[in-house]
Amino acid sequence: MARILVLGGGLIGCGWAAAFAGAGHAVYVADPDPKTADRLAETWAAAQPVLTALGVLHADAKTPCHVMDVAEAPSPDLVQESLPENLTLKHRALQALEKVIAADTPIASSSSGFTPDQIAQGMAHPDRLFIAHPCNPPYLMPTVELVGQAGTPAALLDQADALYTAMGKTVLRMAKPMPGHLVNRLQFALWREAVHLVSTGAASLADVERAVSEGLAPRWCLMGPAGVFHLSGGDAGMAGYLDALGPATSAMWNDLGTPDLDPETANALIEGMKNTDPRSPQNLAQARDRALPVVMKALKPIKTDYHQKGEKP
Amino acid sequence: MARILVLGGGLIGCGWAAAFAGAGHAVYVADPDPKTADRLAETWAAAQPVLTALGVLHADAKTPCHVMDVAEAPSPDLVQESLPENLTLKHRALQALEKVIAADTPIASSSSGFTPDQIAQGMAHPDRLFIAHPCNPPYLMPTVELVGQAGTPAALLDQADALYTAMGKTVLRMAKPMPGHLVNRLQFALWREAVHLVSTGAASLADVERAVSEGLAPRWCLMGPAGVFHLSGGDAGMAGYLDALGPATSAMWNDLGTPDLDPETANALIEGMKNTDPRSPQNLAQARDRALPVVMKALKPIKTDYHQKGEKP
Repeated sequence: MARILVLGGGLIGCGWAAAFAGAGHAVYVADPDPKTADRLAETWAAAQPVLTALGVLHADAKTPCHVMDVAEAPSPDLVQESLPENLTLKHRALQALEKVIAADTPIASSSSGFTPDQIAQGMAHPDRLFIAHPCNPPYLMPTVELVGQAGTPAALLDQADALYTAMGKTVLRMAKPMPGHLVNRLQFALWREAVHLVSTGAASLADVERAVSEGLAPRWCLMGPAGVFHLSGGDAGMAGYLDALGPATSAMWNDLGTPDLDPETANALIEGMKNTDPRSPQNLAQARDRALPVVMKALKPIKTDYHQKGEKP
Repeated sequence: MARILVLGGGLIGCGWAAAFAGAGHAVYVADPDPKTADRLAETWAAAQPVLTALGVLHADAKTPCHVMDVAEAPSPDLVQESLPENLTLKHRALQALEKVIAADTPIASSSSGFTPDQIAQGMAHPDRLFIAHPCNPPYLMPTVELVGQAGTPAALLDQADALYTAMGKTVLRMAKPMPGHLVNRLQFALWREAVHLVSTGAASLADVERAVSEGLAPRWCLMGPAGVFHLSGGDAGMAGYLDALGPATSAMWNDLGTPDLDPETANALIEGMKNTDPRSPQNLAQARDRALPVVMKALKPIKTDYHQKGEKP
């Protein structure tokens, strides 16, 4: 079991802390804000039933600790930087951190918006910094997007990959940093067409939402978009699809919309959302937090069965 | 219970026949190919356990019948045109059909590629033709995309909507025809970015697939893309998201890729798919057909709970 130092005790920092603690690691969350202790305790309380439902709560899991300063925590095996998305703030904290940790301690950043090079600027040992971006909340959502700099040793990334994987995470490796990593880029691509369909009046926002949740999402729980087209290509799979439907695919891509978020579109989205689900965002978030762990738990054995059965070459 | 005439006994025609028969309707599948009887029997055998798992198999469900010619079927309440995607063929069959059915019998087309105007060309009563496009297989996938012509009476679409809804289908209404309707447009938008990520070498196809199946799909089973952004906007919901992240959204949209399906990209997709899941397409399709009804069944009570709980205004 490793000693993990989480830098920053906000939403993501506390969420990561719960994920690491649940996996049996010794976790210290450094944040000068004294309210962090309460937030951390609440997150840990919320996370435990979720981790239990997912079947990943370690028998010897220990409560994560809050410390006011990094110097109060024991020497870590891994640092998970989860500070606000402010480059000056990150630079200042990382330079202070480097004075109290070993020169070869790996530092993972949870940043969604900056490249690892940007974050590592001004560090004494910049190559040890890489991105390990979770989906929120980190104790529930499995994906961790991992991407280093040109100079980051492969062994460092492999070691981090192994640590997250052992926690039950799905590590997604990127060969180079890209804005939005993988998950958000894919999400924003679909969202753009959803906005186009609503803003042109082709369909109600409620029906666009249901097209995703009823029409696309259940199949995508088993396989991604490539798998869907692979199975539309007959015996030749992906090659068969590309032969038969390649030109139609390009034509469809050319027909997709490029909407602006102008005031009229914004209004259509706000009104459309009210008509789709009139509950308050807070209430909706509670319903999601109750339902999503149950979805993940229900999918687990189905996916295992889906991936294991059948002939392998 | 209605009398349904399915025109064309291919994959979609037989799938529709099973869906209608399972809901208790009297179903006749017209196709001059004598092999249709076998395909229909096989589809009906495959569909019954699925309909049972979904909890929608009618107690008095009757086996759908094959007829060689539309004239052999009793006068229908609804025609579901499911012929191959060939406009000349559809025109000829619909003109022949109109000679033997009442002038006001509604005709739904399963077409994915043509507009209702194109299909209705040359019909004696063209306004009764509209699109009701299923996802495949129609007895399992819930969405039906419904779109009429400018002259299609609203009552006709409402009546069809009610019939499909009573079968447990999720009817998605479009105000005007668009290539790919809703589900495919959204799917192709995400697929374009997936291809971009693979073709630029940003990530392996396997990791792009997992970004969707692990990172995005479980949440999308509960809510669509708008719901996700609504919940990222704090107490102000969608309006809060648009205020805080509208510019970042537009910037991300501008960064999305516009790949070509050139031979190099095609090769990356074919090789990537082999590395992602080495099973044959046939084997993979079997695994999907076994797993997907279980996914849908597991999601049903979770979704009901998600939609019902919490305060409503």
